[in-house]
Amino acid sequence: MLRVAVAIAPEVRQLLEEGSLEQLGELFDEIHEEDIADLIELLGQEEGAKLLSAVPAELAARVFERMEQHRQESMVQTMGVDNVAGIVSEMSADDRTDLIEGLPEEMGETLLERIEQVDPDAAAEVEELARWAEDSAGGLMTTDYVSIAPGSRVSEVIEKIRNEGTDAETVYYVYVVTKSEQLLGVASLRDILLASPNDKIDDIMIERVHAVSPTTDQEEVARTMAKYDFSALPVVGMGHKLLGVITVDDVIDVLTDEAREDVQRIGAIEPTEETYFRTDFWTFIRKRVVWLSILFFGGFFTEIALRRFNDVLVSVAALQFYLPLIISTGGNSGSQSASLMIRALATGEVSHSDWVKILTREIGQGIVMGVALGVLGAIRAFISGEGPRFALTIFGAVVGIVIGGCVVGSMFPLLLRRLGLDPATSSTPFIATVVDVLGIVVYLSIARLVFGALVPG
Amino acid sequence: MLRVAVAIAPEVRQLLEEGSLEQLGELFDEIHEEDIADLIELLGQEEGAKLLSAVPAELAARVFERMEQHRQESMVQTMGVDNVAGIVSEMSADDRTDLIEGLPEEMGETLLERIEQVDPDAAAEVEELARWAEDSAGGLMTTDYVSIAPGSRVSEVIEKIRNEGTDAETVYYVYVVTKSEQLLGVASLRDILLASPNDKIDDIMIERVHAVSPTTDQEEVARTMAKYDFSALPVVGMGHKLLGVITVDDVIDVLTDEAREDVQRIGAIEPTEETYFRTDFWTFIRKRVVWLSILFFGGFFTEIALRRFNDVLVSVAALQFYLPLIISTGGNSGSQSASLMIRALATGEVSHSDWVKILTREIGQGIVMGVALGVLGAIRAFISGEGPRFALTIFGAVVGIVIGGCVVGSMFPLLLRRLGLDPATSSTPFIATVVDVLGIVVYLSIARLVFGALVPG
Repeated sequence: MLRVAVAIAPEVRQLLEEGSLEQLGELFDEIHEEDIADLIELLGQEEGAKLLSAVPAELAARVFERMEQHRQESMVQTMGVDNVAGIVSEMSADDRTDLIEGLPEEMGETLLERIEQVDPDAAAEVEELARWAEDSAGGLMTTDYVSIAPGSRVSEVIEKIRNEGTDAETVYYVYVVTKSEQLLGVASLRDILLASPNDKIDDIMIERVHAVSPTTDQEEVARTMAKYDFSALPVVGMGHKLLGVITVDDVIDVLTDEAREDVQRIGAIEPTEETYFRTDFWTFIRKRVVWLSILFFGGFFTEIALRRFNDVLVSVAALQFYLPLIISTGGNSGSQSASLMIRALATGEVSHSDWVKILTREIGQGIVMGVALGVLGAIRAFISGEGPRFALTIFGAVVGIVIGGCVVGSMFPLLLRRLGLDPATSSTPFIATVVDVLGIVVYLSIARLVFGALVPG
Repeated sequence: MLRVAVAIAPEVRQLLEEGSLEQLGELFDEIHEEDIADLIELLGQEEGAKLLSAVPAELAARVFERMEQHRQESMVQTMGVDNVAGIVSEMSADDRTDLIEGLPEEMGETLLERIEQVDPDAAAEVEELARWAEDSAGGLMTTDYVSIAPGSRVSEVIEKIRNEGTDAETVYYVYVVTKSEQLLGVASLRDILLASPNDKIDDIMIERVHAVSPTTDQEEVARTMAKYDFSALPVVGMGHKLLGVITVDDVIDVLTDEAREDVQRIGAIEPTEETYFRTDFWTFIRKRVVWLSILFFGGFFTEIALRRFNDVLVSVAALQFYLPLIISTGGNSGSQSASLMIRALATGEVSHSDWVKILTREIGQGIVMGVALGVLGAIRAFISGEGPRFALTIFGAVVGIVIGGCVVGSMFPLLLRRLGLDPATSSTPFIATVVDVLGIVVYLSIARLVFGALVPG
């Protein structure tokens, strides 16, 4: 994705050396800020800092917004708090807050003090937004939106957009608020443009506004915006007071992050904050070894279970050859059911109160699939010359463990959600461990029953 | 998510019975189309059809766009092709095409013929858009955008938006095209509003426009739009001819679908098209049983491997008690590595050419984690009274299989991508099966070595 940055890097380096700032400005007019952020990464700290100091603070702020958090932090260090204060105060309020919150505490405080000297409003916005948790609606919202008083005419609204439009994160919705900032309605720029200049905003606005509270979880915000195709969603507090607006670009980031976290949790890794190559060796070890150890201790139960069935294992030696096959099959059907549940819970289609309905479905599917695989397994055992009793044992064990896998796999994520935990957390390996023990017990109990006469005592 | 629909259903039912269409219209003015679509679902086919016939075609079209595909299809059947033609021709071009493509072939053709009688342009757009694969940029784009000739003044552009704005899917970008529809630039409505009425569009537009070809994969489209925070992305064909525009709402749907598919693929399920409760019993069986059977056949190799080590298993009976623990630990470290790779590949951070770098990292992590868990395992075996040789065997086997899990788990998704397949496809269970066999071989080879003197022949 760095194509553009790589292509312009030599030209930028040259212009920077020559000090041809005007030409640099012309070049950047045609380039997306995201590509300039990539370019900074490509140039490295020193040259990147030089570039950011050379361009207007307004542009530098746009570029800063698009840099990864750990790069923002090192850039603040390289450029020095005094030099970045002007740039950071030009950033949009939500990104500015995230940046300051991401810095080491002392550095963040110093930077906030400097911002207060440059632009007291910008500092006040940060203090306002920093009150809310990072993964809540309050943590996502920005205070850079366009609002208008009720009774305003369309021509006045357009004039206001013209005046405030450069600073606002979105101009595509205008919020109608009272003097005490109570939200009365919202009008899209599309509807405003389609109206006549003399129309009153009150006649255009939608009164039944979808809004969320600042403590709403970011996943619910993302779900609501995705469902209704909103490109912005207002956040209101007590007395329907407008606190901020969440824009669609932040929601896309939420969706992408949540998807990464889900996949990692399923794979029994504590979610990483950074991407693969940016996460260092020991961070990975920490994120991985905790779950791996928990699952390892869980695995001790398989050993204990097997010891309990020593009698039948000694009498019918071939049983152990099929053990990995049986327990993996249970694990596989379990992870299928779990992955269906995790997504259905994530999109809000299913809730834990649906458990009876889901259990019925899963047991039904388990029976059908278990019988199909059980027949295959019995044939395999018979071909290997194990005899009909053995084949019967395999059949029974496969049917039992596929049903068991479906039940555990579907119910475990529902249980996690019921307990207020993330349903994806380590579910597949955890289910596999439970199903391993279950598989041993089912398999060898059936064997004991079938080979009853042969087993001593 | 049906709260609004449930709340208004009784009132709507009453107004519909009374035939108070005007009051119904007033009520719907304040309600989002998504909620009206939910309402139709709640009312059922018959009443839903009655409601859709009662409201203006323009509103019915917006509601139709938001209904699930299988509901659209049954609604076309309930209302009859002749009655829906007017509604469907008012739908946005991309949704109209998806609807017709989703219908049974004959019904789709009849509907398209009726649309051609009502609105020939609408039918032509469908034929144009139906050329492209559903999961390509061409399949996502719409032809309902606002374009303007070079040299136009801002006042003319705003006038054009006023005239065409109701039909366009987005008015927030205006595309500057030549007479032969060659794309010259794009201007955001924000920049247009901030300019003075006499400015020429050529001075406002950005010339270096990000665009994709109609055959670009939808995942790449989603990645590009997410990276740059675009709310619309133009699709251009030969000679930079503007073919259509992709809007951000479609991209959010792509991201949500792809995340569901990834999670399902990891869990060894063929991705379902519908959500959990909407997918019927036998569809699930089909989606699940194929992979479950493949993995079951794969599991036969564990049986074969175990038979090869019969000598050592007979001599040291306790070995079998630790077998599930060893192979699960390998599977767990493998699924950790796989889930990291799957996301890194999905976001484009990693490509298969990075394999050496990744392999080195994963082997390093495998050694550290393997030694940590190996020590735990050895202590456990020693406590159980198995003796130092046995403890040594467990230590060696755990170290070996954790490294093996990391290597297989990280390399397998890269290999799938290299082969042009989806890296998430069944990776976790498939890796588990490979690692199961590997675990048996490593574990029992070490045992044979350590207990060499005790094993006959």
